[in-house]
Amino acid sequence: MSYQFASRTNGLRSSAIRDLLKVTEMEDMLSLAGGLPTPDSFPLPDLRREADRLLSEYGPRVVQYSATDGVVELRTWIAEQYAAQLGRPIAVEGQIVVTHGSQQALDLLAKVLIDPGDVVVSESPAYLGAVQSMELFQPRFEVIPGDQDGMQVELLAERLAAGLRPKLVYVVPNFHNPSGATMSLPRRQQLAALADQYELLVVEDDPYGAIRFSGEPLPAVASFTDRVVHLSTFSKIVAPGFRVGWMIGPAEVMSWVARAKQAADLHTSTFAQLLLVNVVRQPGWLDAQKARIVPMYRERCTALADALDATLDERITFHRPDGGMFLWTEFADITDTKVLLQRAVEQGVAFVPGSAFTIDQRPDAKARLSYSTLAPAQLEEAVARLGRALALTGHR
Amino acid sequence: MSYQFASRTNGLRSSAIRDLLKVTEMEDMLSLAGGLPTPDSFPLPDLRREADRLLSEYGPRVVQYSATDGVVELRTWIAEQYAAQLGRPIAVEGQIVVTHGSQQALDLLAKVLIDPGDVVVSESPAYLGAVQSMELFQPRFEVIPGDQDGMQVELLAERLAAGLRPKLVYVVPNFHNPSGATMSLPRRQQLAALADQYELLVVEDDPYGAIRFSGEPLPAVASFTDRVVHLSTFSKIVAPGFRVGWMIGPAEVMSWVARAKQAADLHTSTFAQLLLVNVVRQPGWLDAQKARIVPMYRERCTALADALDATLDERITFHRPDGGMFLWTEFADITDTKVLLQRAVEQGVAFVPGSAFTIDQRPDAKARLSYSTLAPAQLEEAVARLGRALALTGHR
Repeated sequence: MSYQFASRTNGLRSSAIRDLLKVTEMEDMLSLAGGLPTPDSFPLPDLRREADRLLSEYGPRVVQYSATDGVVELRTWIAEQYAAQLGRPIAVEGQIVVTHGSQQALDLLAKVLIDPGDVVVSESPAYLGAVQSMELFQPRFEVIPGDQDGMQVELLAERLAAGLRPKLVYVVPNFHNPSGATMSLPRRQQLAALADQYELLVVEDDPYGAIRFSGEPLPAVASFTDRVVHLSTFSKIVAPGFRVGWMIGPAEVMSWVARAKQAADLHTSTFAQLLLVNVVRQPGWLDAQKARIVPMYRERCTALADALDATLDERITFHRPDGGMFLWTEFADITDTKVLLQRAVEQGVAFVPGSAFTIDQRPDAKARLSYSTLAPAQLEEAVARLGRALALTGHR
Repeated sequence: MSYQFASRTNGLRSSAIRDLLKVTEMEDMLSLAGGLPTPDSFPLPDLRREADRLLSEYGPRVVQYSATDGVVELRTWIAEQYAAQLGRPIAVEGQIVVTHGSQQALDLLAKVLIDPGDVVVSESPAYLGAVQSMELFQPRFEVIPGDQDGMQVELLAERLAAGLRPKLVYVVPNFHNPSGATMSLPRRQQLAALADQYELLVVEDDPYGAIRFSGEPLPAVASFTDRVVHLSTFSKIVAPGFRVGWMIGPAEVMSWVARAKQAADLHTSTFAQLLLVNVVRQPGWLDAQKARIVPMYRERCTALADALDATLDERITFHRPDGGMFLWTEFADITDTKVLLQRAVEQGVAFVPGSAFTIDQRPDAKARLSYSTLAPAQLEEAVARLGRALALTGHR
């Protein structure tokens, strides 16, 4: 069928992760490719009890249309959490918008802020979903390399001093996807200072912060400046399938976002918001949930990292993350991990090649290995298969 | 706080409905302004039973991430419904995308199709939410007047013959919001023929079709041509608070939409999709639900229309709709119903002025009166208050 037009999506990259998920549905495949939380972490009995209570005691409002910026019970809980965390008040009316997952927060911000050719600062490697959300609005990405302490903010400072004026600066400060890096305290402080100095807007995307299994929590960039839109979500700490996240930020920016949210989908599911807030606001629930699930991620991360050290030794290098779901690795003597992936899939193991997390998608020696959905014994077997795939690519 | 930039939303109109909802929260206000389904229609016991079953028997997948285009159970149900209704197969893989309410379907279509200056054909009056979704992408709206038989397709034919080449043609064929009009069969056929002749894409938005309380159902425009993206939703037939709608259409267009959906929010709530499809696919459920709720709307529509006839007589004119939630009215000797609204609110009744449903928002004598959330006695009282407001504006 022909049309009078082409689509604006023609330049939009397909998600390597999405294409890979088809492969990972193959029988007996051990997938290190996904970014799914471990299903063992989902509090199904608590959700069942609260769903039953909502649908029997609360009346029809739980399934009726509701406010664009979110149900007030959830916004109140969010404001309380952040007032404690950031050390300043966050307004229930005007500074919070509940979103359909934090992916939607990125889409709404891109929609209200980015005109074609605008500069967006991003780390490299970068979270693919953010790149996808934003590139539909045709920004020019200015890439700042990251290391094990997060985005190299000192390089950003140099480029700002040289005249760079970005529309926004996008960072994932805790247990970055894919790099696993946590931004250091001095870099957080420097980024906040740069935001104040140059009147920048920082987008601080923090889906993984609660999944810290090593070291002490660091203050958010938003605790050092109010020029931050801070994003988070219930996806990793409760469950992703409800698609409930949130954003907090300056009132003016949030008023733009609320209008775009209204045009995008009117509001996020009333039922899902009430269900989730009723679960998490029970006294002590969140601490108990963290105490239950954080050790799952710690154990799996350790199992994968130990197996890689034992089996692949100097054929692979990586830093052990302090939390989250991902090991970011580099293979010695490999020029394109997409080629390695083909061999790996034949051996029954999958991962995401590093090039999928770069703006230009040039082949590289890197790979993201996720440990979140496999048990320790499966992770060991996955590494054994990866070793066989490496041998077959003529490595060693 | 100052920024390096202004927002792209600065040109975006605020929703008159949204602003009015604040007024309608006032105590003792009788609101004819909202577009909410009647809460009596929500099948809370059925939802409660299926939610319990999902969270106890289905395992963690019900709250895990899921496919961008929707869970397969729901897509299968949608394909079966439309195969029967349209008389041709609809592919479960490739022709369906589940959306976060049908509002999101409009946003995704606008996002993938509309470049600044592109022509979009819309009826006047128009559904405000569609206008809001699209205007962020800066189309030029070509307005075709509607009458009680829907968009005047013969005028569209003239403009196409004169060289008009729209990116899409947007219609609400059944019980239009706000006009209440149902597009006649000849116009549906003519619109389909024009789509084939000029290689157009028609967006057929049908949220209200199941709420028919008078006359016989008419075939969808999509039954006469496959150049249609057809939208619908569970919002009116089950409940809106889950935000689950869907779109079906040509595979190529739907592949663009699926990519935009992935960038927008990954996917629609897994839990909500499974819950709703498990309710509606029970044998006989949908027919029983319609038999239960359609009379509610019929009774309310009749109550409002009868009260208007009895109380306001020739001071107001309207056509009685065959379904849906709205009476579209015109007041005699009133030049701006926004002025009347101020008096009405003082008397304790609210409605939406007609200008809110036009692209240029020029004052007019029209108003949308919704009968969906008030009981018959309340509708009679609302009309009495409206009569007092009319008297106070110096009318009669």
